[in-house]
This record gives sequence, C-alpha cells and structure tokens, in this order.
Amino acid sequence: MDSSGSPAESPSMRWWGWGEPNGPPLLSPTTLARLGAILGATLQRRPPVALEAVRLPARSLEPSLDRALRQIVGEAGVNDGHDERVRHAAGRGYTDLVGLRAGLPEGAPDAVLWPADHDQVRAVLELCAAHGVAVVPFGGGTSVVGGVAPLRGGHGALIALDTRRMDGVLSLDRTSRIATVQSGIRVAALESWLGARGLTLGHFPQSFHYVAVGGCAATRSVGQASTGYGSIAGMIQGLRLATPTGELALAAVPASAAGPGLRELVIGSEGTLGVITELALKVRLAPASRGFEGLFFRSFSDGVRALALLTQSGLAPAIARLSDERETETSLLLSAPRSMRDRVGRAYLRARGYRPGCLLILGFEEAEAKVLAARRQSALELLRGEGAFLAGSSPGRAWAAARYSAPYLRDELLTHGVMAETLETATRWSNVGALHRGVADAIERELRSCGTPGLVMCHLSHLYETGASLYFTFLARQLEGRELEQWRAVKWAASETILSAGATITHHHGVGRDHAAWMNREVGPQGVVALRALKAQLDPTGIMNPGKLLPDASNGG
Amino acid sequence: MDSSGSPAESPSMRWWGWGEPNGPPLLSPTTLARLGAILGATLQRRPPVALEAVRLPARSLEPSLDRALRQIVGEAGVNDGHDERVRHAAGRGYTDLVGLRAGLPEGAPDAVLWPADHDQVRAVLELCAAHGVAVVPFGGGTSVVGGVAPLRGGHGALIALDTRRMDGVLSLDRTSRIATVQSGIRVAALESWLGARGLTLGHFPQSFHYVAVGGCAATRSVGQASTGYGSIAGMIQGLRLATPTGELALAAVPASAAGPGLRELVIGSEGTLGVITELALKVRLAPASRGFEGLFFRSFSDGVRALALLTQSGLAPAIARLSDERETETSLLLSAPRSMRDRVGRAYLRARGYRPGCLLILGFEEAEAKVLAARRQSALELLRGEGAFLAGSSPGRAWAAARYSAPYLRDELLTHGVMAETLETATRWSNVGALHRGVADAIERELRSCGTPGLVMCHLSHLYETGASLYFTFLARQLEGRELEQWRAVKWAASETILSAGATITHHHGVGRDHAAWMNREVGPQGVVALRALKAQLDPTGIMNPGKLLPDASNGG
Repeated sequence: MDSSGSPAESPSMRWWGWGEPNGPPLLSPTTLARLGAILGATLQRRPPVALEAVRLPARSLEPSLDRALRQIVGEAGVNDGHDERVRHAAGRGYTDLVGLRAGLPEGAPDAVLWPADHDQVRAVLELCAAHGVAVVPFGGGTSVVGGVAPLRGGHGALIALDTRRMDGVLSLDRTSRIATVQSGIRVAALESWLGARGLTLGHFPQSFHYVAVGGCAATRSVGQASTGYGSIAGMIQGLRLATPTGELALAAVPASAAGPGLRELVIGSEGTLGVITELALKVRLAPASRGFEGLFFRSFSDGVRALALLTQSGLAPAIARLSDERETETSLLLSAPRSMRDRVGRAYLRARGYRPGCLLILGFEEAEAKVLAARRQSALELLRGEGAFLAGSSPGRAWAAARYSAPYLRDELLTHGVMAETLETATRWSNVGALHRGVADAIERELRSCGTPGLVMCHLSHLYETGASLYFTFLARQLEGRELEQWRAVKWAASETILSAGATITHHHGVGRDHAAWMNREVGPQGVVALRALKAQLDPTGIMNPGKLLPDASNGG
Repeated sequence: MDSSGSPAESPSMRWWGWGEPNGPPLLSPTTLARLGAILGATLQRRPPVALEAVRLPARSLEPSLDRALRQIVGEAGVNDGHDERVRHAAGRGYTDLVGLRAGLPEGAPDAVLWPADHDQVRAVLELCAAHGVAVVPFGGGTSVVGGVAPLRGGHGALIALDTRRMDGVLSLDRTSRIATVQSGIRVAALESWLGARGLTLGHFPQSFHYVAVGGCAATRSVGQASTGYGSIAGMIQGLRLATPTGELALAAVPASAAGPGLRELVIGSEGTLGVITELALKVRLAPASRGFEGLFFRSFSDGVRALALLTQSGLAPAIARLSDERETETSLLLSAPRSMRDRVGRAYLRARGYRPGCLLILGFEEAEAKVLAARRQSALELLRGEGAFLAGSSPGRAWAAARYSAPYLRDELLTHGVMAETLETATRWSNVGALHRGVADAIERELRSCGTPGLVMCHLSHLYETGASLYFTFLARQLEGRELEQWRAVKWAASETILSAGATITHHHGVGRDHAAWMNREVGPQGVVALRALKAQLDPTGIMNPGKLLPDASNGG
C-alpha cells in the first residue's frame, strides 16, 4: 500500500529540517569562522543522511484495520510509504532534528491518515480506540518540544492523523468579526485569505508558514505580535473537539459564566484529549499602517523597567522585543556593518555608554495611520524618558525581514556541528532580572561542564501588564555521538532553574514530550491528577498522543 | 452552642433582602401608582415575616463532629444559632427572596463556619469529606442563581463555610502590579485598600459592597466596567484552591503554554471542586480621570451597530451600556422630569425622531486626563457618525449615582407584590438583534399566559470585539402563592430561547442551581461528563456545594 499520494497544497518542507528545501545559505564562511572562534571550535560539515537511508521500525498495522481506515478516509487519505512515515516521524525540535539527520528517528507511525472533516476524524478515532491504535494528531509538524513524537504508549500500532486536508474556511461573520475554519488550515494560508478581505488574524508564530491553526490551538501558541493581538487562546471563540468517545462542541460566544472554562481546557490539550477539528476565530481589521522602531538601552534591566511601564501605561505596540547585551552584541557581530553610516552609528552609541547596549525592536500595527502616529509618539516619549536611545526604523525592518528565518539558520548551524536551541518561560516583572541571570548562568555552567562552552542569549518579548516572556537561545559545539545527553543536561539545568524561580516551564512552545516531566511542579500533583481524570474520561483507552503533556503514569500506556 | 458571635467587619445586610438594613425608600407613592398602572394591578404591601418566624429544619450535625470543627476554627469560628442559619440559608436571587420573606427558605445549614485561612479550610474539608458532611462555600452570599442554596446532595449534614474572616491582603508587588489576597476580602474593601495606594482592581459588579473576591472568581464575575478592565477571569494571575483531597496551587505567571488552562477550570467552578482560598490579582493604576456621556440612538439596532464598530475600532470606554426603547422609556417615566431644561430636552429629542430612543451611557476611566479627552473625542465622533445624539454628562452621572441601587429597588418592589427579576446572556454581534427580540417576546408571552402581563426591558453591556452581553429586567405582578411557579415558567421560556439561539445561558450571573439543568445544552454531554470527571477526582465524596453547576446526576447525592 505504498501507492497513494498525499495532499500537498501547503508549502513543502525539508524532511530533515525546516522549510523550503532549496533556500540559499544564510551563513557566510566569514560568519561561520567568527562563530567558530566564539565557540572555541573549528566548525566542520555534518550533513544529514539521505532520505532512503533513514531507518524506520517495521509497520505493524493489521491489514483489516488498514482496510477499515481506508474505508473512512478513502484510498487517497492513507499512505504508509517510507517518505511519508519519515515526514511524520518527528517534529522540529532539536532532538527531532538530531535524530532525523542521523537517519535514526525514535520511531515512526505505521501509516499516515488525512481525514477530510470532523466526521472522518471521529470515525478514525472510534476505530482506533476500539482496536488500541495510538494516534498522533499532526498539523504542521512544527512542534519543538516533541509534541508529535511517534510514541505508542504501550499500544501495538500507531497512526499519524494529519489534518492537512481539513483546510477550509467554513464561514465568515463580518459583523461579529468571526471566521470559522477547519483546523488544518495553515496560519499563513488563513492570513492570506483574510488579507484579501481586509482582515487579519494577527497570529504570527515563527512557524507561521507551516503551522496549522489547530496546532496553534492545541499548544496555546503565542505569535510575535501577541503584545498587540494576544495569544491564540484569546482569539478562539468556539471550537469542536473530536474525542475517541464523542464530540465536545463549544458554541462561539464572546464570554460566558457558565462554569469552568472548557474552551481553555481544550486549548493546550496537545492532542491528548482528541483532535480539534474546527475553530471559530476572532479576526480584526488588517492594519493599514505598520511601523518599526529600534531603540537602545544601556542595560537589560533599564529596558525591562521601561517595558513594564510602557505596558502598564497601555502604550505597548503589537510587537516588542528587547534583546539582552549578549544577543544584541552577537547580532551586531554576526552581521558586519553594511555602511559607513552603520559604523558611525555604532561608534556613537558606544561613546554614549551603550556598549553595545540592549536593542529593543518595536512594531506598531494600526488600522489608521494617525492612531499609529499618536501611539508611536507616546510610546517613544515614555521610553526616551526611561533612557532609551532612538535608532530609527532600520533595526526593526531588518528584524522583520528575518522574522521567520531562525529555523533555517538552525539547520545550517546543525550542518556545521553547532547545537542551536531555544527555550522560553514567563514570569512577573519583579522576577525578570533574577530569572534572566539564573537561567543564563545555568545554561552556561552546564555547557561548560559538558566541555562545550557556549553562547547564551535572551530576549524579552510578549509583554503583559504583570510580566513578560523570556526567550533564551544558546549555541555550542555539538558533543558528537552524545548530542542528546548534552542537550538533556542543559535542558534539565534550565528547567530546574525556571521552576525554582516560580516561572512557567513554557510560555509558548508547549509541553509535548520534553516538558511532561515538569508538569508535576508546574501545576502540582492535584493539577496533574485533575488533567488525568479528564483524559481518562474523554480518552479512556489512552490512544491520544501518548507520552505527551502528562508525566508518565497518565499516558494510558 | 448558640453562644458564639460571628465576625462582622463587613457591612451588614438585611436578612430578607439586600444591603443596608435601614435605607430610605426609593419609590415614591406616585411612582408606585404609575408602575401599578403599567402592570395592570393595584400594588399592595407584602412585607417580610419577622426573623424569628423563619422556619428552619432541625440541626443534624453530630456533637462529635461539631467539637472537631470547633477544634479547627476555634469557638468564635462556629455558630449554629437561628440568625446565622437564616443568614446563610439563601443567596439573593428572586426565588431566595421569595422564600426568605415568607419565612420558608428551602433549607438551612446546620452550622456556619468561619475558617481563618487556607489551612483551616483544608482541615474542615477533609473532616467533612471523611464524615459525609456537605459544604456550601459562602462569600458575600450575593448569588442570584441559587449558588449558595443549602442543598445537601444526599448527605445527612450541611455546613456553610463562610470566608468572611479570610479578608487579608497578603502582599502587593507594585512592580508587577499584582496583589495577593485571601479570598474572603470584599471587593469594596479591596478596592478601598488599593485606592489608598493609587491602584484599582477595576471590578465593579452590582454586588460590589458585599461580594467577596473569591465569590467573584468562583462565579466568573464580570463587573460594570468590564469593557475597559475585563472580567475577573482576566485579573486572576494565580490562585490556591483547597479541595477535600488536597490543594491545587497555581503560581502567578502572566501567561503559560503548559497544557490546558487549569486556572480557567477553577474560575467558574462555583465551589463544586473546593474553596478558593487565595488569589493573585492583576491591579492597575487608579484612574485620575473619569467622565460620563449620555447619548441617544433612534433605535436599538442603530445603537448595537454603532457599539460593535466602536469596540472593533478599539475605542470602547470602560463602561458602555445601551438601553433598549422600553428600558429608556421606563427610566424616563419612573423619574419625573426634574427641570424645565429636562422637559425641553425630551421634547427636542422626540421632534428629532428619538421617541424615546435608546439611551447609551458611556463611562471613561483613564490614568491621564489628556488620554481620556482624546479617547472620548474619537469615540463620540464615531458614534455621532452612526446617528447618536449627544445628551451630555447628566444621564451618565445619574446612572453612576444609582449604579448599585437596583437590588434595593427590587426589595421595595417585592414589598409591593411586584416580581422583579433579571437574566443575562451574551452572543455575537450578528445575533444580538434576533436574540433581543426573541428573549423579550418569550418573557412577555409567558407573563401574559400567567395572567400577569409584564414589562420587559433590556440593555446591552460588556462589549467584546465579537459580541456583547444582553441583560434583561422584567417586572410583573406576583402570582400570590404561586410565585415560584410563575418564575419557573418565565425562566424556562427565556432559557430555551437563549440556548436555541446559540447564546450562552449566563454571561455573569453564573450557573448555580438555577442554570444547572441547562449545562447539558450549554457545553454538551461531553462537556458535562468532563466536568463530572474532574469533580469526581477532586471531590470524590461529592460534598462540595451539591446541586450546583452540574445537572442532577453529578452532585454526588
């Protein structure tokens, strides 16, 4: 049954990495040399193996079941060929990529299914529940925390349920600003559909071009413009969830006091309760005006204090991103000054005590130009009063041009033996400084003790009145043959620090497999048993996305 | 054991009605006569019985249990005297008041307990769970949907757990704008504490002076200024819930992607999972500037369309409240024109086609006067463009002066044999018109068929980008001796209409006992079984607030 094709309306993605298969290299030899010097290593090429060399487990789906599944989704809706199994064997986290590139993913689904709608999903789940087949819901496959890892939870067989065919816009209620869509529609495709109608969803995660809206909902996604538009959770007005035992349908209402927030229970459930099949989403008027500003602060703590004030004054723009000294320095170092003006600008900043300082990018988006101008002026006035140096729009435009390119960069770094990983958290404003230092120290210490001293950078983004998200990026030479061990040591150290500081284990990457062990500390034992009780009710045979979200005991395996 | 006193720091409340025991009458003989004419009845006095005449069931708490409870909370923390049992026998809904005034509440707790903190609450719940004693968590006792009804759910004994002694502010993090409080603090007391520090919670439900913050959290309360400040749900950053089986503690973080929203599960749980003991709340800078505006629209639909635009343009003020024709007319009718200027103004409006039109009250609140002025100007410009007639600040100031007085008015109406009841819902903008007509028609029809034709009024408030809340008030002559039957008929008709229209059964009153039967339609059978599973996990013996929130089968009784 290697014959069936797979739907391919969405942009394709490298099987071993991110995005467009044939993008141009982003790192020049000079930059690579500079980076090698920083990391104390001569960088050498470590390209991925060939697709056909990837080793997969033997398929284990009963022929009768296979036939029954084809009856539900049609012949074109099933594929158990090598390529599709590899493409659904992993997400896009660091450990996923290490495994894929080596040709040794941790497993693979026995088959990939593409149901066309809610009813087909329900039928598939019912069949799988009856036969003990594990199901990994698969949207864009862009999870960076092992959210789509092919874990079987003790079940004999496993399918990936890919929502790519469920990509329709079901209705648009312009008066209420609500679009109802199938969950498999890609965020970029929806944004483009809305854009043609003068509207926007306002959700721009780094995975923008590939991620499915349903995946965003299932993982509590937060986009780059969340300070203005909020997270996906706030956009969701209603939804349908197909579970192995039935349907949980919540009508689109702007607000309700009818008991606990069931909508919020489905959001973030990461495929462990069922498959989100439809979503009613709040949309906005597309901004007619956009504008970027770059500013420098003398220190990260100056910037943090200023952003707290900005947000609490109601003046924060849609996008706000403050890099710490290291991130600012590295981005300047890796991008050679392009012009005499750049050189002069940098020298001037150094002379004024910003060396290199901390770069803040602001992105304003408003329906009206005059509103944008007013908000921009008020915001810049406040920030200047807090010690900011205004650097014009070019740093912001540069950021915007590269806003979706980090995952490509990570691929190139991996190809040169460099570990590139990110993690994020959120905390209250009064805790930002201590958390920033604590986590950066923990990562640095752990990398050193691995014998691979690294570069740890951070930016603050996603501003709230009470706090913000901290996003850490770290680079180090890979410990060849012990990549996962090296990663685990660093991940453990960072996570311990985060939870001990009272911050959250994840602000927008989700729990997946990588953070599941931390849920006991994140929500406490009572929180975990509450979630387990809920799962036992909606997914009594434990087939839904085993090994994700909850610590081991709960995965029905 | 009649001896112990009860804490009484909070303002006292009439045992048979609302608020201050000795408030002046609000309805003049003239107004009562006018109202009687509208309702086709001669209004006659039906005063409440005397407190000592209220009939309560015999106490049924085992002496050994009583001793054990006193060991936990101290002698001063228990009272099983007649007065306190009556004061905890009911909330402040229409059916509660009908029962209390007749001296026939539907039951009463065997004793009232006032624990001092989280640990005492935990100990009480553990003891009650071990002995099968039902527990009604009791904050301000202001529920209007039977949320504190003394139902036993099959258990032999029942206590009311009053949080009044848990009224401390535990900490204030000014940098992060987070105040951590015990759940029993009254909203007005907290607002006053914050006000002295230049801060505000921004939560102003009609029950403001009496309601406990924990009660607001447990019922998803939404205040009058929610369009600006949001609902209580958005203010809660972290919390502690004491359950019969343990503690669910969620740290205060501004946002998290760590799985389903457990915070949102506790919010709205209405005491059925446990007792919320502490809350970390987002606070804001107190507004230095406040301003009210009154405007008239020619029709409700004109006003609705304008408010949708206003909200979607980001220009809605903190308070917005649009009365329909009937509510506008009634409030004009019941308040005789006070001056020649009023008379002239009304005649002018009539001549311009506003007869009487629909009154919109806007309340602006901003930290800075110039921001307020700018927002006010933009908002009024937009509304004028949509057909609004600007009527100056006096209608708004009149509304503000009386914003907490409706429950007093209801008491006086009841004293004159007039049923006065409210209900609320929320829906998307495109559905507002049909829902408004449908619900008003249903109530009117039902009142007529009871032989008590009534007056049905509505206002739109609590604006969201995708929709708004509709708040209905209706008055009719009471069917003497069949008050509850009359009420049930109207409630049923309105609720059916609301759910058939895809709106929510409650926007901010909560579910309690009165809406429990509608939860199957509100969240569907899968939603109900999910909530039941959760309750079975955290409250396995079903002692927590039996008969509330969930339809019958789930109440552990």
